[in-house]
This record gives sequence, structure tokens and C-alpha cells, in this order.
Amino acid sequence: MLTAQNKSQPRPPAFDDIVKPVVPHMQALGDFLDNQVEQFETDIRDLVRYSLQNQGKRLRPLLVFFGGWREGEVNPDLVRAAAVVELVHLATLIHDDILDDATLRHNSDTVSARYGSTAAVLVGDALFSQALVLAAEFPTVDVCRAVSLSTRRVCAGEIRQTFERGNAAFSLEEYFRVIDLKTAELFSVSSRLGASLAGYDEAFSEAAGKFSRHLGVAYQIFDDLADYLGDEEKIGKTLGTDLASGKFTLPMLVLFQRLPRGEQKLFLQRVRRGELNPSQLAGVMKDYAVIAEVSSSFERELAKADDVLAPFANLEPVPRLLNLSKFVLSQFERLAVSS
Amino acid sequence: MLTAQNKSQPRPPAFDDIVKPVVPHMQALGDFLDNQVEQFETDIRDLVRYSLQNQGKRLRPLLVFFGGWREGEVNPDLVRAAAVVELVHLATLIHDDILDDATLRHNSDTVSARYGSTAAVLVGDALFSQALVLAAEFPTVDVCRAVSLSTRRVCAGEIRQTFERGNAAFSLEEYFRVIDLKTAELFSVSSRLGASLAGYDEAFSEAAGKFSRHLGVAYQIFDDLADYLGDEEKIGKTLGTDLASGKFTLPMLVLFQRLPRGEQKLFLQRVRRGELNPSQLAGVMKDYAVIAEVSSSFERELAKADDVLAPFANLEPVPRLLNLSKFVLSQFERLAVSS
Repeated sequence: MLTAQNKSQPRPPAFDDIVKPVVPHMQALGDFLDNQVEQFETDIRDLVRYSLQNQGKRLRPLLVFFGGWREGEVNPDLVRAAAVVELVHLATLIHDDILDDATLRHNSDTVSARYGSTAAVLVGDALFSQALVLAAEFPTVDVCRAVSLSTRRVCAGEIRQTFERGNAAFSLEEYFRVIDLKTAELFSVSSRLGASLAGYDEAFSEAAGKFSRHLGVAYQIFDDLADYLGDEEKIGKTLGTDLASGKFTLPMLVLFQRLPRGEQKLFLQRVRRGELNPSQLAGVMKDYAVIAEVSSSFERELAKADDVLAPFANLEPVPRLLNLSKFVLSQFERLAVSS
Repeated sequence: MLTAQNKSQPRPPAFDDIVKPVVPHMQALGDFLDNQVEQFETDIRDLVRYSLQNQGKRLRPLLVFFGGWREGEVNPDLVRAAAVVELVHLATLIHDDILDDATLRHNSDTVSARYGSTAAVLVGDALFSQALVLAAEFPTVDVCRAVSLSTRRVCAGEIRQTFERGNAAFSLEEYFRVIDLKTAELFSVSSRLGASLAGYDEAFSEAAGKFSRHLGVAYQIFDDLADYLGDEEKIGKTLGTDLASGKFTLPMLVLFQRLPRGEQKLFLQRVRRGELNPSQLAGVMKDYAVIAEVSSSFERELAKADDVLAPFANLEPVPRLLNLSKFVLSQFERLAVSS
């Protein structure tokens, strides 16, 4: 369990420490993305500029840079690849925020809240197109293929999740399939591309991809738990949207399984009628030890992630990637332990 | 004027005659697209299958095949390129139908009417991704680059149009810029790719692209007029959506310019209040000779299209492409003359 681990392990690195070595890379990415605005047609530059202001943690670019890490080098190919995955991610976020009716993202109005859903659908499409324009600037079709395949899978995951809204009988197996597609896929392609563009061999590139796939699953579990336990102001986005839109994620699926059979139906009715707010639900989750089970799933994925890299311990990217998994762990712990 | 031309010119070829030589190619495309369904994740195949059932005229694939025409040959590269542009087109149609609240397309429920707008946003994204997956199967990045650039421009055109909704002061110049981006761009890339993939030289590929750009503008003018004058049952899609959504297209822009200054304000109010249905508007348009001016714009574009091909009259694709412009002309005439 998490609290036991906390005692025996050293303090995890803070996010600022993790990103310190990669500051010049992230700065280069920021400049690169700023310059992208001028690549778009004049008609839509303001909208694109607003869409690119999103100041997330840029985890996918971090995976590109760390997957292809070589000390002291800002490789322009990695900067471009990082821009590609970040643009794809921003496009999917913009479309997600329309579908979830979310109004807040990183403490700013979402694109759909600010410009309307019509413009938001289309600017998402435009950002995705531009990601592929950049992918086509590499000498071979590899980046185009990898990114478009991944994006198709991300969409498939999102659609599957949409179809299952309101379905409390959604199995855990199906839940893990959905998050593998919708989140882990793009994490995976990010570090795989980073490694291969930096000249690491196929075996390590594949391993970097697998590591990030597990990390992505773990991260999504964290994100799904945060939707119930998080602090909207700290996290900077609208929370409780999963419940509001009938998305049953891991915490709710586990809770539902643990409820006495006779109580499931009534509970589901109360949820559907919106009679339980997220903080009440968090209370019920504590009563049924839901967080402990969610924590186990989370830890299992992170352990798998770290194991994949064990044979490559001597390569430069490995300690960097492992730092990211430590960071995700520390985020999760802060959330789960404080609740 | 159109009626005068009708008397002095031979009967234009029927659509069936035009597509006769390309039947094996279109059949190969149909099979290719059918097989695409299995390429998508199992979770979304039914939705993809439904989305691909759209039985339009497949004008963009025709432009690919005719742009790269060589008698007696079904070139698999052209079939793949045709699938790429058709998938991009279907993706944009699906997104458009959400934004326009359209429920009918080719006499079937739109994807958004059938599966909801959430699934429609995402399946549009998935189709676009798959288009790029196919584009990445070519040995060089050329197809990826051309298609993603075009798609970005299509989106820019759509967004611009969205921002100008309800703006009756939208200039004709701006209107032509929007339709160049949102329609002519993909027409252009279709025949340009067809020509270059079939081994025609740069000069002809460029010309084929320019021809189709003008053809695309002409086609959009036809489509915009049909939204007012068309017969919903014959055309097989929801009409009158431009007016309903406040999109001012060429017929309305011309009409508005021709109204006496004192009447413009009242007229606009009546339009905004929905007091004029499309057939009443068609009557007003006739009173102000709007259709004659729209016809002139249409004819001017078609003439430019045909002129671009004049220096290449000895090449196999040219009579095929010219047949398409004759067909678009005949469609326009049927609409404008019958009204």
C-alpha cells in the first residue's frame, strides 16, 4: 500500500527537478509552437494562438525528449516530433472539452467555451492537420504512419468510451482497453519516436514505447481518480465531468462491484439523478476501500513500466524516463493519501 | 447566358457516360474502402461501416482517376490516393453535418443524427487519421504532406465561414476565398496527386490541380445555389441549411447587394427572424436577377478551368477532366433554368 511505501522510499523528485535538464528543449518546443501560428491561414491565427496557449505539463513532449535523451543536445528532430505529438494531444483535448461540456482547462476558458463548439471542432481538425504537415517534414513516412495510426486508436478509445456512457456493467477489462487506446497509445508513440529519431536501436525504441504505454495507463488511472478526489483550483480544470457525463471510470466501477448486490440498483439511480456530488461519492468510496484497490492497479502498471526498462539500465534515457514514473507516483500519492 | 448557350452547344454528357470508362476504378475503390472497415479497431467498425456507406458521386476520386488517366489501367496507387481524399472528404462532411444540424445526406440519416454528435466528432477524426495512415503507405512523404496541408486549409475555410455567420456585409472577395479553401483545395489536390502518381510531369500535374481548383469553386457555387433552388428529394440532402445557420453564400450576397439601400435592413431582419422560407427567397432572387449574376460567376470559373488545360490537349487525362466540367455545367443549368 502507498503509505507503507512512503516510509521505506526516498522522497520522489519534484516536477521542477525532473524537467530541469530538459528546460532548453522545452523552450525550443515553445518557440517552435509559437512559430507554428504563422503557418496557419490568416483567417484562423487568433483562434490557433488561443488554442496553443494551453499550458499543460507537456508530458508527451517530455516523453519524446527523455525517450531520445542524449546529454547536452537539443536535437531539432526531437523538437519537431514533440510538436507533432503535442498538437495531436491539444486537438484531442479541444474535441474532448466540447464533448464533455467542460469550460475550464489549465485555469483558462476551453476553446469551445470561448469560441463555440463549431469553431472548436474545426480548430481541432486544423491542429491535427498541422501535426501531420510537420510529420511529413521528416525524410521518411515513419513519423506520419506512427502518428496517424496512434490517433486513429485514440479516437477508437474515445468512441468506445462514449458508447459505454451510463453503462455501469462496463467491465474492468473494457475500461483498461479504453484507456490503453485513448491515453497510453499517444504516450507510447511519443517515447518510441523520441528514441528512434535520436538513433537508439529498435529494441530500446520498442521498450521505451512499452514503458510509456504502462505509464500512460497509470497516468489515466490517476486522472480518473482526480476527477473524484481532486481540488479543482489546484488541478486547474473542471472536475466531476466523468460522473456528469455518465462515464464510469475505475473508481466508480470498483465501487459498483463492491456494493452489496441489493444496493447497486438504488445507488445507480441516485448517481443517474445527480443526487450524489463528487465529494459525497468520495466518502462512499472511502467506506468501501475503493481507493486502495485503485492504488493497487495504479502501482501494478507503474511496476510493469519500470520493469520494461530494466535490461536497458545503462542507456542515457532510462534514468530520465524512470524519473517521470516517480513523478506520476508522487502525484498519485498526494491525491490518494490526502483523501 | 445559360439558355443561349444551351441552344448553340451539343447536349452535355450524362454522368453515367462520364463514369463509364472509370467503372472498374470506382469498383476497385469501393472494394478498397469496404476493406478499410477491418483496419479500424473492433470497437468502432459498425460506426465506420455506416459512415462509409455514404453514396455520393465521389467527385474527388473521379478527379484522382481522371487526373492520372491512362486508358485500360487500374493503377493501385491511384485507388489508394482516391481512398485518401474520399476519407478526408467524408470526415469533413460528418463534421459539417454536426455543425449544420443536418439530418439527411444522400437520403440517409447523417452520422450525427444516427449516432449523436459526440460519436460523429470522433469518427470524423478516426476517418481522417485512417486517410493519413493510407497516405503514409506511399514510399515518400509527398502524399502525406499534400493531404495534410489541404486538410488544414479546408478547416481554415470552414472556420472562417463559421465566424462570418450572420454577416451580410461579407464581401464577395471573402466568399470566394472561403470556397477556395473549403472546397476547391481538396478538388485541386485530388487531380494533382492523380496526375503525379500516374507519372505525368510537374507541369501537367500543376495544371490538373489548377483546373480542379476552378472546377471546385464552380461546383461550390452550384451547391450554394442548390441550397435555395434545389429539390430536397432529388438532391437527397437537407436543404436550406445555409440560410438557417446564417451562412451568407453567393446568391444571398448578390441579392443583398442588389436590394435598394432602404430595404436591406428590413429584409435582413425578416431573414434573421426566419420569416422567409427558401422558396420565397428564390422568388425574390428571381425578381432581382440574382440567378443571372450567379450564373456568370459560375461560367467564369468553368471557363478558367478549361483554359488551364488548353496547352495539354494531347494528353489522355484532358478530355476526361473536361467531361467533368461539362457535367458540372449541365447540373448547374438544370438547376438554374428550371427555376
